[in-house]
Amino acid sequence: MKKEICVTLGDPNGLGPELVCRLFPDRRTDRAYLMLGPENGLLWHMEKLGLEKFYTVLDNPAEIAGAEPGYYLYCPAVLNDFELKVGMADPEGGRCAGESLETAMELLNSGTVAGLVTCPLNKAMLQLAGFDFPGHTEFLATRSGVGRENVCMHLGGPKLKVSLVTTHPRFVDIPGLITQERILRCIELTDGLIKSLGLDGPIAVCGLNPHAGESGRIGTEEIEVIEPAIREAVKRGFNVEGPFPGDTVFYFAAEGNYSAVLAMYHDQGLAPLKLLHFSEAVNITLGLPFPRTSPDHGTGYDITGTGRASLESFEAAMEAAELMVDA
Amino acid sequence: MKKEICVTLGDPNGLGPELVCRLFPDRRTDRAYLMLGPENGLLWHMEKLGLEKFYTVLDNPAEIAGAEPGYYLYCPAVLNDFELKVGMADPEGGRCAGESLETAMELLNSGTVAGLVTCPLNKAMLQLAGFDFPGHTEFLATRSGVGRENVCMHLGGPKLKVSLVTTHPRFVDIPGLITQERILRCIELTDGLIKSLGLDGPIAVCGLNPHAGESGRIGTEEIEVIEPAIREAVKRGFNVEGPFPGDTVFYFAAEGNYSAVLAMYHDQGLAPLKLLHFSEAVNITLGLPFPRTSPDHGTGYDITGTGRASLESFEAAMEAAELMVDA
Repeated sequence: MKKEICVTLGDPNGLGPELVCRLFPDRRTDRAYLMLGPENGLLWHMEKLGLEKFYTVLDNPAEIAGAEPGYYLYCPAVLNDFELKVGMADPEGGRCAGESLETAMELLNSGTVAGLVTCPLNKAMLQLAGFDFPGHTEFLATRSGVGRENVCMHLGGPKLKVSLVTTHPRFVDIPGLITQERILRCIELTDGLIKSLGLDGPIAVCGLNPHAGESGRIGTEEIEVIEPAIREAVKRGFNVEGPFPGDTVFYFAAEGNYSAVLAMYHDQGLAPLKLLHFSEAVNITLGLPFPRTSPDHGTGYDITGTGRASLESFEAAMEAAELMVDA
Repeated sequence: MKKEICVTLGDPNGLGPELVCRLFPDRRTDRAYLMLGPENGLLWHMEKLGLEKFYTVLDNPAEIAGAEPGYYLYCPAVLNDFELKVGMADPEGGRCAGESLETAMELLNSGTVAGLVTCPLNKAMLQLAGFDFPGHTEFLATRSGVGRENVCMHLGGPKLKVSLVTTHPRFVDIPGLITQERILRCIELTDGLIKSLGLDGPIAVCGLNPHAGESGRIGTEEIEVIEPAIREAVKRGFNVEGPFPGDTVFYFAAEGNYSAVLAMYHDQGLAPLKLLHFSEAVNITLGLPFPRTSPDHGTGYDITGTGRASLESFEAAMEAAELMVDA
């Protein structure tokens, strides 16, 4: 039996229910998937798309363990009264996303399911609903007891895979967050990921300053922090190189010279990643006690229900979760 | 008669002489080009490539005015004793690059030539030779009397064209260099460029912080500096939009939604640019009293003489200079 995977529907007013309604009915699976969220989110899209019911509703989420392959739904009791407002930013959507995640965490912590795919939530709605987290990653890092400093955000597409040393701080705070410990942790986690994907090329580490500091002529973070971290990682046996100028390293990585790139900050890594893999990249949180993936896009309130959203990223998130759960 | 254009050979120990020897002999031209640099740099590659002389040596650079279409060479007297060391980083190469630029500036300031294409120099060698500039851009901005704060570095490829608000400061110094005046100046210069290229889409302006600050939740530079600059630019009649998140805007620009992107700093703009246009982008200095272009690569000492260097970027630099000189 293949290990079970949880799929949270995220904010039901956004794209989550549409993604599963468009992908799952015709998608063959050899394992049991448990969707978490209110059923009326699914029913709205099923009616619009003319779909038969493609899932089984469970009264108790623990029943997913050992269930026949297929798609299942469990709606946490606190979400039974959810009022659907398709395409609208509403705090109730944030509450759904948060409560579904709480239930997912219980199932993951108890070992009932082995992995998690999360549909998009809206950070502002999540916070308005009283969940004090900037997003999925921090929510899961905190609730799993791992801590935010020990997880690493990774976005992967077919040609380019990028991990981030820092994620969403203010620009001025970035240099202070780049430490040897943090870089080493991200290298270790990225190494584990690429090995689980069967890749064996080196990890390329970016510099922070333009031209990676030009030997100290443009900033000293490379000499003081990044280079020592790389030396230590090499000493520990990791296949890692750098620091490389952030403007050219992604070209060489996309050409196949590196299995992944470790970027120092958000735009340095994600501008090239999204240029190449706009609708097909998978967001993976590394360092959690379980595999967690998500599509690399937001709730898309403005296009929810139109059928215009690409399924590529969500499908890639499903496949990556399966690979990682089975690795 | 088409206006004359100057081509500095840059550091003759690097790729400059090889680029012209591989491109010019078979390249048809309807204008007179004046190369500046020592002849022995050309002779070395001509012998290696089995080439006949494809240029005319001038004793006086002023003779280029009104000359028949074709390629000409003038070697400034101070470079007559230049000792060629192909593929080596040598201060004499920096001296050549600097002295050729001084001569080019005289010809440009006097109106003898109308535009400039510069072959690569090595910044460290330039400085060792006593020219206290970090590169071509600053050299030309200073010598032309325009001032560094009034020029804007632009890199353009077929699908993506990127201007930079800041170029090569330390990372920690970037936020302090982003001012409304500077953004407005870069918008004005970029607008002039894209119009001269016959493009009429809007200019997209990046934010500084991740997700362009998320309405002030992640940094305030967008609200305090970038948004007011964009409003002022719109008021002055420029077709400009933003600030947009730096991780997604380049995808939309490459899709054709924008004619150019204004990035706040080096890696934000050049990581996506070079991923898409690694060997074909042109470097253009906007804001000088004359068009100036260059290939978007360095001296390439390690591959000089091997024939492995791509000619695409140099050829594109020649074409862009011609377009701009004639505009």
